Amino acid sequence: MAYQPPVRDYTFLLRDVLDIEKHANLPGFADASMDVVEQILDGAAAFTSEVLAPLNSVGDKQGCKWSPDNTVKTPDGFKAAYDQMVEAGWLGLSSDPAWGGQGLPRVLSLAYNEMSSSANMAFSMYPGLTHGASEAINYGASEELKQRYLPKMVAGTWTGTMNLTEPQCGTDLGMLRTKAVPQADGTYRITGQKIWISGGEHDLAENIVHLVLARIEGAPAGVKGISLFIVPKFLPKDDGTPGERNSLVCAGLEEKMGIHGNATCVMAYDDAKGWLVGEENAGLKIMFVMMNEARLGVGLQGVAQGEAAYQAAAAFAKDRIQGRSLTGPKNPDGPADPIIVHPDVRRMLLDSKAVIEGGRAFLFWTALHGDLAHSHPDEAVRQKAQDYMGLMTPVLKGYLTDKGFKACVDGMQVHGGSGFTEHFPASQYLRDCRIALIYEGTNGVQALDLVGRKLAANGGRAVMSFFAEIDGFLAENEGNAQLKPYLDGLAGVKAQLQEATFWLMQNGLSNPDNAGAASTDYMHLFGLTGLSYMWALMAKTAQAKIDGGDADPFYAGKLTTGRYFLERILPDAGAHLTKLKAGSDAIMSPPVESF
Amino acid sequence: MAYQPPVRDYTFLLRDVLDIEKHANLPGFADASMDVVEQILDGAAAFTSEVLAPLNSVGDKQGCKWSPDNTVKTPDGFKAAYDQMVEAGWLGLSSDPAWGGQGLPRVLSLAYNEMSSSANMAFSMYPGLTHGASEAINYGASEELKQRYLPKMVAGTWTGTMNLTEPQCGTDLGMLRTKAVPQADGTYRITGQKIWISGGEHDLAENIVHLVLARIEGAPAGVKGISLFIVPKFLPKDDGTPGERNSLVCAGLEEKMGIHGNATCVMAYDDAKGWLVGEENAGLKIMFVMMNEARLGVGLQGVAQGEAAYQAAAAFAKDRIQGRSLTGPKNPDGPADPIIVHPDVRRMLLDSKAVIEGGRAFLFWTALHGDLAHSHPDEAVRQKAQDYMGLMTPVLKGYLTDKGFKACVDGMQVHGGSGFTEHFPASQYLRDCRIALIYEGTNGVQALDLVGRKLAANGGRAVMSFFAEIDGFLAENEGNAQLKPYLDGLAGVKAQLQEATFWLMQNGLSNPDNAGAASTDYMHLFGLTGLSYMWALMAKTAQAKIDGGDADPFYAGKLTTGRYFLERILPDAGAHLTKLKAGSDAIMSPPVESF
Repeated sequence: MAYQPPVRDYTFLLRDVLDIEKHANLPGFADASMDVVEQILDGAAAFTSEVLAPLNSVGDKQGCKWSPDNTVKTPDGFKAAYDQMVEAGWLGLSSDPAWGGQGLPRVLSLAYNEMSSSANMAFSMYPGLTHGASEAINYGASEELKQRYLPKMVAGTWTGTMNLTEPQCGTDLGMLRTKAVPQADGTYRITGQKIWISGGEHDLAENIVHLVLARIEGAPAGVKGISLFIVPKFLPKDDGTPGERNSLVCAGLEEKMGIHGNATCVMAYDDAKGWLVGEENAGLKIMFVMMNEARLGVGLQGVAQGEAAYQAAAAFAKDRIQGRSLTGPKNPDGPADPIIVHPDVRRMLLDSKAVIEGGRAFLFWTALHGDLAHSHPDEAVRQKAQDYMGLMTPVLKGYLTDKGFKACVDGMQVHGGSGFTEHFPASQYLRDCRIALIYEGTNGVQALDLVGRKLAANGGRAVMSFFAEIDGFLAENEGNAQLKPYLDGLAGVKAQLQEATFWLMQNGLSNPDNAGAASTDYMHLFGLTGLSYMWALMAKTAQAKIDGGDADPFYAGKLTTGRYFLERILPDAGAHLTKLKAGSDAIMSPPVESF
Repeated sequence: MAYQPPVRDYTFLLRDVLDIEKHANLPGFADASMDVVEQILDGAAAFTSEVLAPLNSVGDKQGCKWSPDNTVKTPDGFKAAYDQMVEAGWLGLSSDPAWGGQGLPRVLSLAYNEMSSSANMAFSMYPGLTHGASEAINYGASEELKQRYLPKMVAGTWTGTMNLTEPQCGTDLGMLRTKAVPQADGTYRITGQKIWISGGEHDLAENIVHLVLARIEGAPAGVKGISLFIVPKFLPKDDGTPGERNSLVCAGLEEKMGIHGNATCVMAYDDAKGWLVGEENAGLKIMFVMMNEARLGVGLQGVAQGEAAYQAAAAFAKDRIQGRSLTGPKNPDGPADPIIVHPDVRRMLLDSKAVIEGGRAFLFWTALHGDLAHSHPDEAVRQKAQDYMGLMTPVLKGYLTDKGFKACVDGMQVHGGSGFTEHFPASQYLRDCRIALIYEGTNGVQALDLVGRKLAANGGRAVMSFFAEIDGFLAENEGNAQLKPYLDGLAGVKAQLQEATFWLMQNGLSNPDNAGAASTDYMHLFGLTGLSYMWALMAKTAQAKIDGGDADPFYAGKLTTGRYFLERILPDAGAHLTKLKAGSDAIMSPPVESF
């Protein structure tokens, strides 16, 4: 069975759980009544499942082809699909209307992005990075640069990239060497080599806008001397159309385990013409606008690949007959039962389903805070929302890609031997998803960002605010007997996260290695807390629907999946707490030679 | 850095922990004094690391090539390496001297098999399956068939395969359709299609001996009507050399995610000539001799791929400089520190190391019981050893491949973006290892075999005997202050496993779905118990060496890795127990349509 966008889950989240219509006073939300939202979701579902999904396997098998003339050919069908996407305006769903966007809430574009990524992750990275690059330009560039680039990028007729990594530096950008030489006309000449540049070259759009980190001659060493430049493939003419070819080329493509349909380029800049974005030596801050957007997007990819892998596994488990139920035949007229009768097969499916649905809610809830941070009139609301965005971004990226990958691994396992063959989609989902744990900062880097930066920011304001919100929810619902298992689970894991947070405060400052050693377990404990809160919110909403007489089995399904989460996933929280409280001795004491 | 066989760990296990020399009274062991063992290990290390390892990536990139004349070409270099292996006699290390084997202890061939699999998993499957097939023939075939086939297979001049799976049946062999028609001369004509046949066709050896499950005309339906046949590619002439081509062909190869160097064949039998092995309708029992051997071998593949992935990751982490230690520069003269200074990188490496070394000990300990079961003069010892083999086989297969795969995933993660490219070996280790969780019975099938069959066999004699052995060890070492953390850890997890076992007895019989829902968590809890016992044994041995004045840092290293296991891996046991005691309601109640 081909990928089916989970539109029902989107409407549940947007209408029932998050109730986006109550924000109708905010810019963009006024135009996002639920009937409009449902139309958009249906249109997005049709486009992604009918146009993008059939190209997913084509992209995997053909890959991108580099030619010695430094051009790159994307897989068959990608160009036509890209044109359709541009034509329909999917790229600008939540972009600023000043640049041609539709200005709808970001939480809505999240739904589109998930569908697009489930249907075809490699394809979706081209518009995904374009959107991130346009956000960075919108945040940091001069009005003139915005005017020149943003309308093209929001429409998608030009794409964007982010150029950070060089062979000697990835995580540690202080070692970056690409240089920028100021010119008399105010532009710069950029020279250097960048690697792993997604969409660095392709045949989808008429121009490619590279955002490049480089060091202006004479700049301070380390991260304080890094500036950001726009370096377009074709220099825009005065009329805005692409003109002269800039002196930069794609020198080759990486061979990699997955996302074959996306061109991962080695980029060589040789005195290429570039324009400074923002101030000199202040490039990292602007690039981090793009990076943070990208990190949320990668967390979404984890959920998206997990969803697609889950759907394929569930369809296989309903179709494949093999063996009999442990409690007697369920398909007595057939030669065997479908394997979905087996508890261990269901365990794998529900492990995926519970994390995907909880993770999707966590992403949507956070993205709604992104909208509030952007446009809510009350400064206190904006600040809290901004705090949450900062705090949750590493959790969503790290935890949800770890769990999305697990869903892909389990999805293959449900298939048995068929899953290991390339005739079924399980292998591609697993291979594509694997990069999400690595790029835009490895999950270990996310965990360090969480414990080393995000927790401590503003005296711990963000996490305290999150704890207070959970306490408020628990108090508000105290005595609700139907919700009791969810409230107990949430109260328990919140207490564990709080204990871990205090442990970090006491032990991480005196010995930073304790914080480093605890970081990944802490991130997972945080993820479990976030999902427990989401499952409590969803259960409350579903229960209210049932109590109100709504017979849609969707709501009963939410309650059983939530129960599975409490019984079979949440118990990991205690193990994470025990592990992180063990400290760093056993980790740091072995000498390097012993590895 | 290329793969380095862990010979030091083998000698520690064989000499110090298991003390194989004390079994010198048993057949084979007399010839296995530690100096002989060390010579063999060194030779095996040289062959596997110098001949097989360099071909690993070649095999991955080239794969096997099928031609329309139904021949299969293995990757460049495989044939020459295979000839070298046959020449050196590696295949027959522990085979019966009656058929040309060297008759050495099986525990020693385990070390060879691990090195071979780490160096080149796809290659190693050709001799691996040949060995399994020869064991099945040795167990079940007539003297005449043994005489005709075993000398060739033990030498490796002929290879072997196992043909179980058909398109409509894998796990559920009762649905098998391949038919066998008796002939007047006592042979059979075999017709049918088999899929996923590893090594079903290749250019490495002069003949291929297919062990084929088929249904004799008129046999009972289901698993009670399955017989086993030898169906050679070339019919042996009276002088024992390959003669006429049998009417069977490889109709194509599977495209798959990994093990590209191994030919995974679709086999078409069309009135092919076959010889019955053992009795009519009793083929499954004989095939299970091969299957059980193969399951242990697959558990070993998990450890082997994990070891290779770990080594590559550790080498990368020592070499790659990026960022600074959280506690100040450790490489102040360089532009950054090697990433092995970071606690989270060490966490991933130690997670792998602790499970691999513990898992290797568990495999060797079990394999030694295999030797005892085979040749110990005391029937009680043989029976206990046989019980352990049965009980531990699904645990070793399921738990160690799950954990070996995790080591491959973490190994890639340590590499960052480099790991996702095919320039580094991390991707191949991950892709190759993935099949180990699936073939020879998925890990879910192993878990069901454990809780449904092995636990209950003989009134639970095997598991009770294991508990008693652990209790004995704990009593014997009570009061040993140095060992206290290991003893406490072992006592705790043993109590948890016992509680889980009682829970299964109480709840699994009344509702088999409870057993099914608990099975994978139970298998992991069992694996953690086994590893806790192994770490206690290894710690005791290492501590005794240190106390005896041995300054080899290897022993201190064992103690810190063991401590890591206790602090950072063992806490998962509690989560497994909590999950499995939740029962099957949340798993079984969702209707099929809700997935």
